[in-house]
Amino acid sequence: MDTKQVDPQTKGGAATIDDLITPTLLLDQGKLDRNIKRLADHVGKFGAVLRPHMKTAKSIDVARRIYPGEPGPITVSTLAEAEYFAGYGFKDITYAVGVSPAAAVRGLELSRRTGANVKFLLDTVDQADALGEAGRKTGVTPSAFIELDVDDHRGGLKPADPALIAVADRMKAAGVDLVGVLSHAGESYALNTREALVAAAENERAATVRAADILRAHGHACPIVSLGSTPTAHFAENLDGVTEVRAGVYMFFDLVQHGVGVCTLDDLAISVLATVVGAKPDKGWILVDAGWMALSRDRGTSSQKIDQGYGIVCDEKGRVYDDVIVAQASQEHGILALRPGSTEAMPDLPIGARVRILPNHACAMAAQHDFYSVVKGESPAIQARWTRMRGW
Amino acid sequence: MDTKQVDPQTKGGAATIDDLITPTLLLDQGKLDRNIKRLADHVGKFGAVLRPHMKTAKSIDVARRIYPGEPGPITVSTLAEAEYFAGYGFKDITYAVGVSPAAAVRGLELSRRTGANVKFLLDTVDQADALGEAGRKTGVTPSAFIELDVDDHRGGLKPADPALIAVADRMKAAGVDLVGVLSHAGESYALNTREALVAAAENERAATVRAADILRAHGHACPIVSLGSTPTAHFAENLDGVTEVRAGVYMFFDLVQHGVGVCTLDDLAISVLATVVGAKPDKGWILVDAGWMALSRDRGTSSQKIDQGYGIVCDEKGRVYDDVIVAQASQEHGILALRPGSTEAMPDLPIGARVRILPNHACAMAAQHDFYSVVKGESPAIQARWTRMRGW
Repeated sequence: MDTKQVDPQTKGGAATIDDLITPTLLLDQGKLDRNIKRLADHVGKFGAVLRPHMKTAKSIDVARRIYPGEPGPITVSTLAEAEYFAGYGFKDITYAVGVSPAAAVRGLELSRRTGANVKFLLDTVDQADALGEAGRKTGVTPSAFIELDVDDHRGGLKPADPALIAVADRMKAAGVDLVGVLSHAGESYALNTREALVAAAENERAATVRAADILRAHGHACPIVSLGSTPTAHFAENLDGVTEVRAGVYMFFDLVQHGVGVCTLDDLAISVLATVVGAKPDKGWILVDAGWMALSRDRGTSSQKIDQGYGIVCDEKGRVYDDVIVAQASQEHGILALRPGSTEAMPDLPIGARVRILPNHACAMAAQHDFYSVVKGESPAIQARWTRMRGW
Repeated sequence: MDTKQVDPQTKGGAATIDDLITPTLLLDQGKLDRNIKRLADHVGKFGAVLRPHMKTAKSIDVARRIYPGEPGPITVSTLAEAEYFAGYGFKDITYAVGVSPAAAVRGLELSRRTGANVKFLLDTVDQADALGEAGRKTGVTPSAFIELDVDDHRGGLKPADPALIAVADRMKAAGVDLVGVLSHAGESYALNTREALVAAAENERAATVRAADILRAHGHACPIVSLGSTPTAHFAENLDGVTEVRAGVYMFFDLVQHGVGVCTLDDLAISVLATVVGAKPDKGWILVDAGWMALSRDRGTSSQKIDQGYGIVCDEKGRVYDDVIVAQASQEHGILALRPGSTEAMPDLPIGARVRILPNHACAMAAQHDFYSVVKGESPAIQARWTRMRGW
């Protein structure tokens, strides 16, 4: 017998953020909608399709802000995400992790069951063979992208690598439909000037289009030319030859993206609501009930010009306290303090006061939570409660 | 309608680790039992009570390895944990985070509902007042520890701080039962020699006992003298005056504790099972489907003598590959590589091969998962599937 008590928050009884049990995740719907529109408009200008990556939001309710009508193309980071979104009618799903033999079977079974077209990613002949075998086992023709490496970030083939053609040929022999090429300029996260970001976007575009051209010259149709990262997607000034752009964190943004220069602080759509549970006035510390379990261990800004600790601290309405960050975090405790060298004074926050903490990395912070309490601007009213999925 | 697909693993169909969807969390029951016995024996030698901290395991099944019969004393890091364990009959529960007004009411309502004695933590007169008010509101007499600061780690009062008596007096006035003093030598995680750890344990003991003595000299009974951290609990050579010891990560251990010198690599009870999904032979990289979502972002060993990256890599039976670590991690990708300067060769791991990855920080890795697949040693057989709770 599972006698776990029902979390009061699951009863949907919270009318304002004052009713919420802390720590908990807030999502500002106005900022979300603005961020979604901004990138859709930018990509749309070039006539390319935006295929949002759902790994950040992992929520059907967020997906419906993007696709209020018919479900459209999405990217996912796990097959559990693919299954979740297919369950809500999404059909055009790219699983953007290199395919293993077991994942090939599971993804194709999902396609067979739901009619979804799950597109896989590969960069080796072994994966082409595994996918072909999974296709014969499940009776579904597999579709896959060849993954490209445009900036030495992770996996993928360089456009000039002879393996590109070898893999494409092997896919054909194995009965795998080559739907296109796919790249991700992950190194763009380390940049912070407009020039460098524009150049990274153009490098990503040129290398990806080049690979598609090489494949076509060898008789492979390669209909989809897919690229993207949140920084390069926003700084692209030319998408000639590109058919689709992928991005995920753009929906929420975070302090890393702020440090890269893609967004303003006011664009950050999620935060953790926390309660003051102590203080050490002699050290200039205020303790809150949000530690790394609620904020995540992500310290992405530690390698940027401005280290934001475990996050920037705002008042309960979301207004930033100058120079106050989460300086340290243990599992369920965060220590608020001024940045080193600051001449500001710590705010006066008694036991029970509440703050909002902005994320270093939205994907990581959100992953620590099972739902979003949806707010709008400085209003304490909770508009909705949106659940997240998780797991693999 | 929630049409999320059922995860095949929830059907309980996995007979061996080969059947598991990766990435997923493994727990070695033999190591767990050995670790539990080791600390219970050590603390028992001194006649003190061990009050395990359930924040690491968050699982009734793990708690039952500690208490196969009647539930005993536990520590928790969230009130959701308190509610979960109270639902399984646990009555003696210390909530080891400074209490807020809202938490006071929620915890006392749990006590009223279940008959559990939820003990709170505080270090200010404001918290004493808030707890007293919550007691009047709920009709339950609150019990609380005064939190001590023995090593400038986080919250708490120094034993010599006059506030110690002021808080104790205010608790009495507010109708709060002072059950004792509580300390946590969190700075012991930064140590790595036997001498320093023994000294930290003795410092923690002496300061905690001194605070209890001061309170008693002022007429406060202070029956419980509670201290603990996994390093100091194992290195304590004297517990005179101490009534109970708390520790959590000792059940599983991890690479941080290994770096501190509390355990051997063979003691590490949890790992993430991952599948090879790619390679970059020219860079010496093997890519697996476990990134920070599965491993956590914790980089606790980065400040130790040996930086273990995002974890040490073992073969699918759990045998360590010399010098192979997870060098980089993105959301769902891990990059396996040799340590800098290593003269070893990378193992030959084809697409689909499986590895186990040992955690930097067991609390953080386990928190990324909803269940443990229980194994014993090198056998691939899955003994059981134990679920975890999460949230606040």
